[in-house]
Amino acid sequence: MIYFDNSATTQVLEEVAKLQYDYSKEMFYNPSSVYAPAVAIKGELNSARAMLMNYLDAPRDGKVYFTSSATEANNIILNGLIKKNKKALISMGDHPSVYEVAKNLKNQGYDIEFIKLTKEGLLDIENLKSLMSKDVGFVSFIHISNETGAVNDLTGISKLIKEISPKCIIHCDGVQAFLKIPFSLSETSVDVYTVSSHKIHGPKGVGAFYIRNGIKLNPSIFGGGQEDGIRPGTENAPAILAFMLACRIMAEKLQENYTHALELKNLMLKTLGENCTDFSINSLNAPTSPYILSVTFGGVKGEVLLHSLEKRGVLVSTGSACSSKLSGNRILQAMGQPAEIIEGNIRFSFSKQNTQEEVIMAVNYLAEELIKLRKIKK
Amino acid sequence: MIYFDNSATTQVLEEVAKLQYDYSKEMFYNPSSVYAPAVAIKGELNSARAMLMNYLDAPRDGKVYFTSSATEANNIILNGLIKKNKKALISMGDHPSVYEVAKNLKNQGYDIEFIKLTKEGLLDIENLKSLMSKDVGFVSFIHISNETGAVNDLTGISKLIKEISPKCIIHCDGVQAFLKIPFSLSETSVDVYTVSSHKIHGPKGVGAFYIRNGIKLNPSIFGGGQEDGIRPGTENAPAILAFMLACRIMAEKLQENYTHALELKNLMLKTLGENCTDFSINSLNAPTSPYILSVTFGGVKGEVLLHSLEKRGVLVSTGSACSSKLSGNRILQAMGQPAEIIEGNIRFSFSKQNTQEEVIMAVNYLAEELIKLRKIKK
Repeated sequence: MIYFDNSATTQVLEEVAKLQYDYSKEMFYNPSSVYAPAVAIKGELNSARAMLMNYLDAPRDGKVYFTSSATEANNIILNGLIKKNKKALISMGDHPSVYEVAKNLKNQGYDIEFIKLTKEGLLDIENLKSLMSKDVGFVSFIHISNETGAVNDLTGISKLIKEISPKCIIHCDGVQAFLKIPFSLSETSVDVYTVSSHKIHGPKGVGAFYIRNGIKLNPSIFGGGQEDGIRPGTENAPAILAFMLACRIMAEKLQENYTHALELKNLMLKTLGENCTDFSINSLNAPTSPYILSVTFGGVKGEVLLHSLEKRGVLVSTGSACSSKLSGNRILQAMGQPAEIIEGNIRFSFSKQNTQEEVIMAVNYLAEELIKLRKIKK
Repeated sequence: MIYFDNSATTQVLEEVAKLQYDYSKEMFYNPSSVYAPAVAIKGELNSARAMLMNYLDAPRDGKVYFTSSATEANNIILNGLIKKNKKALISMGDHPSVYEVAKNLKNQGYDIEFIKLTKEGLLDIENLKSLMSKDVGFVSFIHISNETGAVNDLTGISKLIKEISPKCIIHCDGVQAFLKIPFSLSETSVDVYTVSSHKIHGPKGVGAFYIRNGIKLNPSIFGGGQEDGIRPGTENAPAILAFMLACRIMAEKLQENYTHALELKNLMLKTLGENCTDFSINSLNAPTSPYILSVTFGGVKGEVLLHSLEKRGVLVSTGSACSSKLSGNRILQAMGQPAEIIEGNIRFSFSKQNTQEEVIMAVNYLAEELIKLRKIKK
């Protein structure tokens, strides 16, 4: 099996799964209990917050909240920071867990506008400028597009926003960037940043977000007061601490993994060019993540191609898994691509576990399947 | 270590932790992906829904949604079912994840009233009757009190509510009841029922709720459309399927575990009477869960007693862990207990892993510590 769908989810690393297993059995106490073993776990969770700030290189006086997913984090952030009397701008390139929350708030009467994308899948800076004013209180845009891998310039964009509206709160969904590409949150003016565990070989069921000091977040989930009342519910300590181990491992090999992914992507681009015809690369002329390669093939449907590749043991996606049914084409549409082109879209997404041999095999299979499928169509 | 805080959380069973470990490594695929291994996991999740209906003995045409916690489930349920133009009644005995959501909705202008508790910690039926009318669209009350173990009569209460308001939707939080005491949801008129994994030796990070066929739930979380759009975010399949294994094991031994817990509780009541003075049992004259024993000791503070017991290796709580800081005394207050009595409260909560020897040892330690503490006070 060749797994090229690592942007949908990743295999949990052996040692990470083992830590979760051990904690589930031995350190299972409720972190909100007041006896020593529970207090010790609470302490570990607090250390984890500090570690996460280190991995983000974020100002250390901020806060980290753990959630059950990046989706939950994004819901909490938008519901907690978008105000009735202040305009909010949301990128059309955002993940559904941002975009759909914003649409819901807009339906409720909130003043929300959507920022366009360029043809390359980046935030459209000119459109952003035209929408910005000192009345804008909140802006959200994705760090790396989960559809095409396009990398937005956090530093430049956040600086631009703050120049026009200094008190504007800036949120970035960093799920496809965190511990995959090197960056420092401190070097940007981004205020709130979302990450996910299961995209970096950690367990499912854990997300987190960082928020700068002094920003007041209105709670939208209610219960026992855990996570400062921002995300109540018994803290999932075994999963959170397993996530932190995944972070440590990924942080240690960040540059190495990045280079490896870049080699895989470049090899795939080269072999695609040598073996396949009638295809185009999305976000080709933008800075992109080496972990994501979005390709549109002419004359085939992405889903048909996906299942043809699956028969050869290659797993890919036709868009982000989480949005495949609802809005998988929304991003490509926002990039101005016509429906017949979007139909032929396939996303390859890599991890440190993939090899060059896998890339060569996959492209060979792909070339063969493309010929077959295109013949059938004729 | 004697762990008598099983209502706060439980140790994950060896085989349950192992299943989560195996799935995290081998069946890690995103259940929303469209290739076969992912579709297989989606199928397992759907089987799990049917199994959960079986364990609840709920009408099989209803639906089961998986969440990241019972807290999240309760938030989704209240936000999704309480309507602006219909009165809602919420028990004062409900868990904070119901009670605090209701308070927030009330603050937003929703028509919500709170149902009193009897001195025994049960829902006050007379008060319920006085609040009920055909305009009541939603009622929530807890199945088993997490504070005192008092068991509400689901069948009788739900029948009473439906007689007055046939279309009223009835929700019960069953976190302390599910697979701990035998019951059939089909024999009640309860429409929505919340359960939790980590209270029955399953992993943290999983809750679920059942909802009867035909009830429309407005979504309050937005994202990639998972769980019919009710709980978006990548499905935590390894944890959900581990939860299902915990359910199977608990269901098989339900009667045996119940009898075991009852023996432990009766033994503790007996030995407390023989060894300790100046204490009272909460909900003594109500039907109670054998898994929970809430005791108020005179002349000591619960927290001081808790730490004295901790030094002897006995872990208990002064109230439910999740609400210890916020509102641990809310339930006892609602039962009409004065502050000085509430202060001396300790909750013992059992599981199948506890033994009679542990009960005897714990009461011996308790008797000794009580004498010491009461001497210090004098």
